[in-house]
Amino acid sequence: MELREILSRCDHTLLRVDATAAEIRALCDQGMRYGCASVCIPPCHVAGAKKYVGDRLRICTVIGFPNGYNTPAVKAFEAAEAIRNGADEVDMVINLAMVKDGCWDDVAADIRAVREVSRGRILKVIIECCLLTEEEKRMLCRIVSDSGADYIKTSTGFSTGGATADDVRLLRACCPPHVKVKAAGGIASLADAEEFIRLGADRLGTSRIVKIAMAQEQQAAEAAAAPQQPEAPAQPETPEQQDTTY
Amino acid sequence: MELREILSRCDHTLLRVDATAAEIRALCDQGMRYGCASVCIPPCHVAGAKKYVGDRLRICTVIGFPNGYNTPAVKAFEAAEAIRNGADEVDMVINLAMVKDGCWDDVAADIRAVREVSRGRILKVIIECCLLTEEEKRMLCRIVSDSGADYIKTSTGFSTGGATADDVRLLRACCPPHVKVKAAGGIASLADAEEFIRLGADRLGTSRIVKIAMAQEQQAAEAAAAPQQPEAPAQPETPEQQDTTY
Repeated sequence: MELREILSRCDHTLLRVDATAAEIRALCDQGMRYGCASVCIPPCHVAGAKKYVGDRLRICTVIGFPNGYNTPAVKAFEAAEAIRNGADEVDMVINLAMVKDGCWDDVAADIRAVREVSRGRILKVIIECCLLTEEEKRMLCRIVSDSGADYIKTSTGFSTGGATADDVRLLRACCPPHVKVKAAGGIASLADAEEFIRLGADRLGTSRIVKIAMAQEQQAAEAAAAPQQPEAPAQPETPEQQDTTY
Repeated sequence: MELREILSRCDHTLLRVDATAAEIRALCDQGMRYGCASVCIPPCHVAGAKKYVGDRLRICTVIGFPNGYNTPAVKAFEAAEAIRNGADEVDMVINLAMVKDGCWDDVAADIRAVREVSRGRILKVIIECCLLTEEEKRMLCRIVSDSGADYIKTSTGFSTGGATADDVRLLRACCPPHVKVKAAGGIASLADAEEFIRLGADRLGTSRIVKIAMAQEQQAAEAAAAPQQPEAPAQPETPEQQDTTY
């Protein structure tokens, strides 16, 4: 798979609590340069980032993040404000307490509250797989699919675990084709990224793929600047260099 | 220090993302039984808990928690709704991005937005000490003190570190007497609790102190139920048993 193709599926992500405006602008620069699907940033940075990128890059933000135990009214308010501020995509966290209480109608209503204020924008629903049983995951695939959401997303990246191959496979198998899958949390290598895409993920939430692309460019620039040594014997490739085939 | 005195300063806390309604009711039962200052619970549980406890226990909840990078409007909306739902106390998280950007007026405005909707209720402001320099902590003591907040609070318990003795001492020294200090995060023993109180903390955010009280009651009940052995020689006290002097 071409690196460009993987990059085009990345929500280039920076959700550290103390990420500065300058870091967010750098993230936006990278997102535009490497053709990412979007940048995924904290709500407080949406207005500034939108002003900075205009229509050159999609802005994604997070709602009820990462704990998901805000009330439905708060999530809806936060999503509506994010969209007014320029968000093209919103990634909301479900209410895990409602899941564990078996209050499935409430789980659905919580998602619907955000869907209603986000029509015309992409809505991704984070179910936090690492805290769920297989039965709960299957039930949530049904609820998210019925909610009108565009994506089901594996993880916040702030809990006990990130995306796994098993979860991506399960979500892809349990949701109808119009509901796409986003894998997020702990995606650290091109091999991870390619596997998740192969298993059915349409989007990846990560900052590592852009960093890998930047490192490759750096390596290529250094190689081009180095004096030619046509007589030198061929060196065996290191694992990192082999990765440049992506 | 008497255990009862320590318990009266505890915000008995359960902020796990998947805490169920039954777990929250059990927390409330414990909070009432052991005379805690409040229970500190997720926003989605406030209405149910208030209905359950009525006026027998104070309800505390968290705002913009734990990342603090929601917009000021969202934090204010969330606080106002929590109070309508029955919250007596709100613990808000400051915006760390604004701190790192040096936008101190924005930090203050973010706190003011919540203060304005929470008049007559207790407002605690979480500054997340583990992510701050000493200079930032001192500046935040000034801003929180000027904001009209009732408490400055060390930590969310969801970041890289909890309350430390140095931080409690610093916050107490840098804030005027009318601003109280709440220590939270990682408070695991009666010795911790007593030290933080001695250093100037008026409140502690923890669930461990109630658990210790429950274990002591259990031990006492077992001892009372056991057959008397008046002839047995006195046993040396274990460290845990020595703790019963609290």
